[in-house]
Amino acid sequence: MKHAVLGTGMVGQAIAGKLVAKGHQARMGAREARNEKAAVWVKQAGKNASHGSYADAAAFGEVVWLCTKGDGSLDALRAAGAANLEGKLLVDISNPLDFSKGMPPSLFVSNTDSLGEQIQRAFPEAKVVKTLNTLTCSLMVDPAQLAGGDHHAFMSGNDAGAKQQATAILKGDFGWREVIDLGDLSTARGTESLLPLWVRLYGVFGNASFNFKIVR
Amino acid sequence: MKHAVLGTGMVGQAIAGKLVAKGHQARMGAREARNEKAAVWVKQAGKNASHGSYADAAAFGEVVWLCTKGDGSLDALRAAGAANLEGKLLVDISNPLDFSKGMPPSLFVSNTDSLGEQIQRAFPEAKVVKTLNTLTCSLMVDPAQLAGGDHHAFMSGNDAGAKQQATAILKGDFGWREVIDLGDLSTARGTESLLPLWVRLYGVFGNASFNFKIVR
Repeated sequence: MKHAVLGTGMVGQAIAGKLVAKGHQARMGAREARNEKAAVWVKQAGKNASHGSYADAAAFGEVVWLCTKGDGSLDALRAAGAANLEGKLLVDISNPLDFSKGMPPSLFVSNTDSLGEQIQRAFPEAKVVKTLNTLTCSLMVDPAQLAGGDHHAFMSGNDAGAKQQATAILKGDFGWREVIDLGDLSTARGTESLLPLWVRLYGVFGNASFNFKIVR
Repeated sequence: MKHAVLGTGMVGQAIAGKLVAKGHQARMGAREARNEKAAVWVKQAGKNASHGSYADAAAFGEVVWLCTKGDGSLDALRAAGAANLEGKLLVDISNPLDFSKGMPPSLFVSNTDSLGEQIQRAFPEAKVVKTLNTLTCSLMVDPAQLAGGDHHAFMSGNDAGAKQQATAILKGDFGWREVIDLGDLSTARGTESLLPLWVRLYGVFGNASFNFKIVR
């Protein structure tokens, strides 16, 4: 399957790398078509990897992964172009972290709204699914690294079929044992609100190799 | 030891009941000294149980447990009286849930502040420790009910001694296996922000018998 991965940072590299490793084609998108980091990634990732502008990537992908920093999410999607997102699963991994007042970050949207909902409102024809935004990127694509995968990913979205499609990739390609469907996209308020706790836990443990498990 | 439990609802009854069962003395405080629910509780809880006004309870307790609804927390503490809180461990279990716009609730303070911090600012001589606000009350005092206790309580507070004292009660009397000290009271922003997710998980599972575990 053809995937667009918007963002060239650690999250984008983890997602695109895993997709290619699983036999998918992935095109990494950046603000500039000739992004250096994306070019380096393509060389190392092999023949199923390519790169280009946000619009190049989004036009290529049947599924679009939003792996930018949260404060760049809407700009990246505008550059990708609404027509290139129409009808597609748009997996939103970004978080509305606000570092402008120093560490630890606060959230630039929270409580009564979420970044996931802002994105869905801005691109009503995309099928936004919020997931994987609650853990570090190496675990996103290899949850078995930690406790044999005995922990949880969450999922929020308004389109049942898009959530099924995303769950199939998370389980089939990334190895997730359980993905908890929280409901519609307004439930992304809950998972985006995990970040303030995540950041503090990171401070306590001194590393990012942890995740939430819902024990019941 | 003598404990004040402010609040006569399910949380107050769970905390006060467990304290008495463990051989402590607990006085339940309410807005009115002759609160009916508190009187019923005392009859059933036995000789180490008593009740009175918020001030009666707080004057009695060497430790004060804040078990009111979040929007009543500051009023209850004002009624208890700053002098009755001075120098004492004040365990804040309350959550800033705002039901005024219907279900699910939002938070009336979040992101850049927390109810725990508001309480500490209003009562600077109390030693506020935020804990147990992230799970249902039956599990607060009997975590072994769920997965043999293999899940977590969190703790936030500015006073190391007060956190040690609270941890000793949680482990020694309530049976918690692990309490994660997140740091100073500003980390309560993180645990109070878990509530929007908790509420959605409650909706998915249809019951409150679950908790967060940090897998690492």
